[in-house]
Amino acid sequence: MTRPRAYTGARMLEAAEKGKLAKADYEAVLPGLRTDLVNAQYELRSAGRPVLVTIAGDDRPGATALYNVLHEWLDARYLASHAWAPPDPGEELYPPFWRYWRALPPKGALGVWLGGWLQSRLRLRLEDALDDGELARSLDQYRRFEVLLAAEGFVLLKLWIHLSNKQHAKRLAKASRGKGEWRLDENDWRIGDDPEAWTPLVEEVLARTQSDAAPWLVVSGANERHRDVTVGRAVLAALGSACEEKARAPSAPLPPPSSAPNPLDAVDLTAELPYEIYKKRLAKRQRELFGLVNRAEAAGLRPVLVFQGWDAAGKGGAIRRITHAIDARDYRVVRIAAPSEEERRHPWLWRFWRHLTPAGRMVIFDRSWYGRVLVERVEGFASEADWRRAYDEIVDFEAQLAGAGSLVMKFFLHIDADEQIRRFRAREHTPYKKYKITEDDYRNREKRPAYMEAAAEMFARTGTETAPWHLVPANDKRWARVAVLDAICATLRRALPGKAG
Amino acid sequence: MTRPRAYTGARMLEAAEKGKLAKADYEAVLPGLRTDLVNAQYELRSAGRPVLVTIAGDDRPGATALYNVLHEWLDARYLASHAWAPPDPGEELYPPFWRYWRALPPKGALGVWLGGWLQSRLRLRLEDALDDGELARSLDQYRRFEVLLAAEGFVLLKLWIHLSNKQHAKRLAKASRGKGEWRLDENDWRIGDDPEAWTPLVEEVLARTQSDAAPWLVVSGANERHRDVTVGRAVLAALGSACEEKARAPSAPLPPPSSAPNPLDAVDLTAELPYEIYKKRLAKRQRELFGLVNRAEAAGLRPVLVFQGWDAAGKGGAIRRITHAIDARDYRVVRIAAPSEEERRHPWLWRFWRHLTPAGRMVIFDRSWYGRVLVERVEGFASEADWRRAYDEIVDFEAQLAGAGSLVMKFFLHIDADEQIRRFRAREHTPYKKYKITEDDYRNREKRPAYMEAAAEMFARTGTETAPWHLVPANDKRWARVAVLDAICATLRRALPGKAG
Repeated sequence: MTRPRAYTGARMLEAAEKGKLAKADYEAVLPGLRTDLVNAQYELRSAGRPVLVTIAGDDRPGATALYNVLHEWLDARYLASHAWAPPDPGEELYPPFWRYWRALPPKGALGVWLGGWLQSRLRLRLEDALDDGELARSLDQYRRFEVLLAAEGFVLLKLWIHLSNKQHAKRLAKASRGKGEWRLDENDWRIGDDPEAWTPLVEEVLARTQSDAAPWLVVSGANERHRDVTVGRAVLAALGSACEEKARAPSAPLPPPSSAPNPLDAVDLTAELPYEIYKKRLAKRQRELFGLVNRAEAAGLRPVLVFQGWDAAGKGGAIRRITHAIDARDYRVVRIAAPSEEERRHPWLWRFWRHLTPAGRMVIFDRSWYGRVLVERVEGFASEADWRRAYDEIVDFEAQLAGAGSLVMKFFLHIDADEQIRRFRAREHTPYKKYKITEDDYRNREKRPAYMEAAAEMFARTGTETAPWHLVPANDKRWARVAVLDAICATLRRALPGKAG
Repeated sequence: MTRPRAYTGARMLEAAEKGKLAKADYEAVLPGLRTDLVNAQYELRSAGRPVLVTIAGDDRPGATALYNVLHEWLDARYLASHAWAPPDPGEELYPPFWRYWRALPPKGALGVWLGGWLQSRLRLRLEDALDDGELARSLDQYRRFEVLLAAEGFVLLKLWIHLSNKQHAKRLAKASRGKGEWRLDENDWRIGDDPEAWTPLVEEVLARTQSDAAPWLVVSGANERHRDVTVGRAVLAALGSACEEKARAPSAPLPPPSSAPNPLDAVDLTAELPYEIYKKRLAKRQRELFGLVNRAEAAGLRPVLVFQGWDAAGKGGAIRRITHAIDARDYRVVRIAAPSEEERRHPWLWRFWRHLTPAGRMVIFDRSWYGRVLVERVEGFASEADWRRAYDEIVDFEAQLAGAGSLVMKFFLHIDADEQIRRFRAREHTPYKKYKITEDDYRNREKRPAYMEAAAEMFARTGTETAPWHLVPANDKRWARVAVLDAICATLRRALPGKAG
């Protein structure tokens, strides 16, 4: 079982897999290769990790032909294939990576993508719609995406189909005589006409996105039979390694947890609000929120509200004070419970990406991706390597949200252990609230110190300028509800230019 | 277990459920009602059919408040709720009902929708954006949607929250003094200001969409406690009946199958194309198709290609001759196999709706919804009542597609029994094609007369002006491939105005 070799440094185009395959040799090889591919695909279905093969290239018609060949060779019923066009108006309402997340093949499936992020960045750079800095940042972003996928068990194979300058020139000459490939587009002409410009550009794209976890296989498109068989074998190798046990990479050591005081200890749990003042403030803030949400919608801003906190801390009640103030069409509440079967077959962040709202619509997460570094960490549902890398993955996710017009606000509702037990008892004595309380809740309570420690590390590692944590004293529900509304209104006011909220 | 009573004829608003519930009575009733609701919801999850509760009304703030109340009373983790705003730019790329299909609750789930099709048609009519004829047609369309859902086992409950003219006037007077409900919008003012205009309109909407399968419950919004408890009880009844065995409605008797000759018998299976002519024609048509598809994309047309035919008739090969001609970004191929677990929890057409492409993008179905009246009918996978109603459901589905800019083309590839057995044998002797052939294929072959009969009825009942069947002689693969391309190009040429393809 060979994996495609990893290139280092530049000159990756020159090192393209070249060669010729005579028709007779091709026909001798083909039946065995196709049989092996179909069998490997079936084996993957029953046992394997997800495999993602992406096809791009300066030889765009060649890449397309290869995409078609793979559909013919493999059992197309079980291919999660996608040919990426520019985002349509619906996709543009979401962060740029949203559509790639949605299209990820689940465990046991083989995804084949044609074009996509890297190819489109290259195209935008060629058209001068991106400058060098933007290109570099967008390549880094893709690299982080791949690192996450690899950590989640994906086998990644990136194909680059390459023609030499001479071959490009030949094809264009033929096409300009009205012969040969008729599906060339503007960009193909641009590449063919100006090899000096695009060669270093492609080299940069390849070099910056080269890694052991997601290696490039650069294949010459000059000889179709050689191209197809070379790629067929690489796909076979990828399918094979996806059926093997995943070698878990040791996680980079993190600095030891800070000995700084836990910010939760500084929360003043005696804060409270008398009923009459509460009623007035609540009404005032709700009215303000209604107006601010309408303006945020018009501005295409997406408030992303995250609620965490102890069991029975009052998350649901705080959320209702928000939703009752605004039009039901302007928000979605997402309640996070255990992942479904389908969700478990995807990377852990997938189930949060899928619940994002389009631009202009608020989304409220009642529990969230922070479960990874709270309950999953403390209860051991995630390995240490997995929850440790989650901090960076979360920061990256929220940065993508913020970059796409989201206002990320994270609330941790804090109550002390005595208040919690009082609320548990009250729930047990209310017939229609009994379902909210289980043995687990009592068990979790005993692990309060471990949760405190996890929360402290979470605040330290994920509190950012654009996605800050709000620690809310919640022993008094009234105080907590008004404090949450205050914070949301303040954030919206700051984000909305012009007239005061 | 009481079901909401069915109203007949007009005057449904006058007959609204009215009443007052004192606070003490409300508080006495509430704990029991909430407990029953949560328990019924759990029972539904393990055993039940899907339930869909829609909330609309001339009392829009009241309908919204009720939506919030249901979220508080029920276990919101298991509510499939949706508050319908006007379609966003992404949703507008699909037929109007696409987003409703996507949001349908699966078996065992309770969906609660606020607003939606009927409320928005009422609004559009009030704004004179629809005339009476359009309104009537759009109500009929909704009725057909409900009939389909009911036939698929849905328990439907439609709530209309109503205020009298006097109550509307009172609310507006209060709001204009800056008090009371601050979330009123333009449309609420229009309704409140002009009861003479909207009352008959609402009566018409209610009367035209009233049915036993999807009854209206009209509830006065004047007393909130009464409104909430009345609705809570109706939801409880709906949950209850969803856990009972579905009473299968006897299907309307269809006219006896026509004794007219089977159109397949008239297909000339001797048609063939010599290799050299085939090569030329294929290349010519593929080049033409490339241009036509680009123009169709620019015009926002959606070609919907459906391939049916005998096993081994050459569907895959015919499809590849299409896809190889055009840009991979411009089409999606959907291969229909047995429905997944998730698909089985939804109405049978759901899995086809979900695979539609946005406007401008071609979709090719390799097998399709016609399996319902072919294999599912012949093998007994669908009951007679189910496949019999499928003809109308299919015609309606395709009419919706055509109405939303789709060009529906349906191909049946016809081969005779001898040719089929030759192809089966050839597949068995090709290692990488073996997976395409199973015992089932041989078994199905013995049922050829039953399939012939089913196909004849299918052609007769589903061939329409806007979604015609093309019967393609396919004993000669070359003939079939060119005939398919000819038909696609001809359809596109006719649909695209201006210059000849």
